[in-house]
Amino acid sequence: MSYPVSPLASPFPALPEIAGVVPHVVRAGYKDWGRCDLTYVTLEEGTAVAGVFTKNVCCSSEVDLGRENAKLGRARALVVNAGNSNAFTGYRGREAVEQIMEQVAAHIGCPKEQVFVSSTGVIGVPLPKDKAREGVEKALTAEPCSWEDAANTIATTDTFAKGAAATAMVGDTKVKISAIIKGSGMIAPDMATMLGYLFTDAAVEPGFLQACLSAANLRTFSCITVDSDTSTSDTVLAFATGKAGNAPITGFDSPGAHAFAAAIHDVCRQLAHLVVRDGEGAQKFIAVSVSGAVSDESARKVGMAIANSPLVKTAIAGEDANWGRVVMAVGKAGEPADRDKLSIGFGGTWAAQQGLPLADYDEAPVAAHLKGQDISIEVDLGLGEGTATVWTCDLTHGYISINADYRS
Amino acid sequence: MSYPVSPLASPFPALPEIAGVVPHVVRAGYKDWGRCDLTYVTLEEGTAVAGVFTKNVCCSSEVDLGRENAKLGRARALVVNAGNSNAFTGYRGREAVEQIMEQVAAHIGCPKEQVFVSSTGVIGVPLPKDKAREGVEKALTAEPCSWEDAANTIATTDTFAKGAAATAMVGDTKVKISAIIKGSGMIAPDMATMLGYLFTDAAVEPGFLQACLSAANLRTFSCITVDSDTSTSDTVLAFATGKAGNAPITGFDSPGAHAFAAAIHDVCRQLAHLVVRDGEGAQKFIAVSVSGAVSDESARKVGMAIANSPLVKTAIAGEDANWGRVVMAVGKAGEPADRDKLSIGFGGTWAAQQGLPLADYDEAPVAAHLKGQDISIEVDLGLGEGTATVWTCDLTHGYISINADYRS
Repeated sequence: MSYPVSPLASPFPALPEIAGVVPHVVRAGYKDWGRCDLTYVTLEEGTAVAGVFTKNVCCSSEVDLGRENAKLGRARALVVNAGNSNAFTGYRGREAVEQIMEQVAAHIGCPKEQVFVSSTGVIGVPLPKDKAREGVEKALTAEPCSWEDAANTIATTDTFAKGAAATAMVGDTKVKISAIIKGSGMIAPDMATMLGYLFTDAAVEPGFLQACLSAANLRTFSCITVDSDTSTSDTVLAFATGKAGNAPITGFDSPGAHAFAAAIHDVCRQLAHLVVRDGEGAQKFIAVSVSGAVSDESARKVGMAIANSPLVKTAIAGEDANWGRVVMAVGKAGEPADRDKLSIGFGGTWAAQQGLPLADYDEAPVAAHLKGQDISIEVDLGLGEGTATVWTCDLTHGYISINADYRS
Repeated sequence: MSYPVSPLASPFPALPEIAGVVPHVVRAGYKDWGRCDLTYVTLEEGTAVAGVFTKNVCCSSEVDLGRENAKLGRARALVVNAGNSNAFTGYRGREAVEQIMEQVAAHIGCPKEQVFVSSTGVIGVPLPKDKAREGVEKALTAEPCSWEDAANTIATTDTFAKGAAATAMVGDTKVKISAIIKGSGMIAPDMATMLGYLFTDAAVEPGFLQACLSAANLRTFSCITVDSDTSTSDTVLAFATGKAGNAPITGFDSPGAHAFAAAIHDVCRQLAHLVVRDGEGAQKFIAVSVSGAVSDESARKVGMAIANSPLVKTAIAGEDANWGRVVMAVGKAGEPADRDKLSIGFGGTWAAQQGLPLADYDEAPVAAHLKGQDISIEVDLGLGEGTATVWTCDLTHGYISINADYRS
């Protein structure tokens, strides 16, 4: 963590322990750094698992195997390697992942498909098997650690540790969710993959856990962007131990299902925002709210076109209410839009409505809003009922410094 | 032109006069600046026209009308306003364009659909009709000017004037093409729209001229990017006066048709490169060559994903042979790719082949290549016969300074 802490950082929250989940951290020494870099989390028998993964087709073996095994629905352990992403390493990379899965499975006495592995860091270098073997060996007998230790250990170029929690009433039972995440854009040579893990004591069928995670993903992780680039290793996994003792949630007909789904959504939203708040060079947190689209998905795509526009992001960095750049971004999204129905505002003040600049537009409240750290851009397409909110950060000299002003 | 001249600038070339084409420039005073800002080009009767236009759905009235009227195939005049893009100005903007078309048409004695208008500059402010009327009035009787004067007058935030020329043998007749262009990314408050104009003395049917321009566009203007943002006004028009006296080219069966198409392509490629060379903050010109894709269009999309990646562009700015970022960009393009068949090189030296870093990879020639101004990135997907080359520039502190460090 050699970069200054993000001005948008949040302190690490108090995360409850989750029955059936025990985190540990050790030093495998993947890099020559004085910190733990291997996280090992044990999960009691019967734990359900669900996952969402990068759509990048050049993904790592960890993603290939995790995607395949999450479909089986059960997990007993998670191993996260920091410092080496093991991506673009061919069969040698895959062997290293399978070695870890086998080593942990042998110790626990479970099918190796129930051991999930993630790796983050430099790409193109196969994860060293000897270091992985020694690291895992230590981890298997390590003392439990705090959530904050685990959050720090999965991190690479993050400037602060990230966690979130929520609870939900399922029948008469209060279930808990604790979650950690890492990611801050994609900084080479350590590609700052987003890796997120949710742990809950709720009893949930894997199919419903997957439905909750997939739905939340669409409105949270799929709605954030730092620089439009997509890691080859992005992964979010949810684990449910069932130790809370609630009647298992099997679908939306089960008692508490909606509350549980809402809690998963809430945690995912918190985690997603934390990643944006650690965006490379970020000085401002930007929410782009799109309404009046022909569908929610269309609204999301328009929002992402705005949030990915270097011109919009630099305008916000410059505290400039440049609605013309927003018009441009709407128009290039490839989604239905009508110039003459378009309205654009900042911080709740319309600058243009129905395709025309407001005659009595008062820039003073907008200028004041743009000087703050939390910025909102509102866009109404005037076509339908579709809505979406996406989140990003501004594009600053800090981004260039982090990504260009180094030599590998 | 308040920014320093791009280090990638080229001197303005010697462009031949084109029989039947007369450029003029005057000062309409769209902005309070001491320079000409209205360009007026007359075209002799019988001139064929073809056009390609922005796909941005929030386009200007100029684009709407130009797209419509180019289909009619004939042109007598071109008017280009600099300093006000007239975009996002609703019916008042459209009225200003129609006023110019009518004023010029009345003077020439032609249908107003044969008068083409482009505007570039600040958006959201209707083009002032009085200034346009007086400017056009002056232009109608102005003295002819040089191509360089015209190239300077259509420019807004460009740091150098841009022109290109080519010739082709059509039967026994040498036909000439002279062309000018402006654009350097999209700088607000003057959105740096790309406006390009080709003038030839060849006799060409409008349909074939359009076919040549559309084909060239796919491999040139559609293959460049500065910052992934798309102006609401981008326009390229080609005018053919027929004064060279060749037998009219009606299709690829006509003598000289292939030579003419190649010359149009050549001019478009030169113009497209000039725009990239004036990219905001550009220090390096980058050619991304993609081969082995399932189709040419797939190769183009993969190339554009690489050329639009902030992480690839900052890596080049940092003179870092970061092929991992190229892998990431290939994978996110949404096109067929196979991690284990992918090869990546810089300046003709492979860094990774068939999905693995080269064991004997010698970084020295790559490091030397990256220190230069003209950078090439080679990507082979190993899947098929599709190829494309796209061009971009690096992403530097200069880009942020131009786009964020001002107050409008």
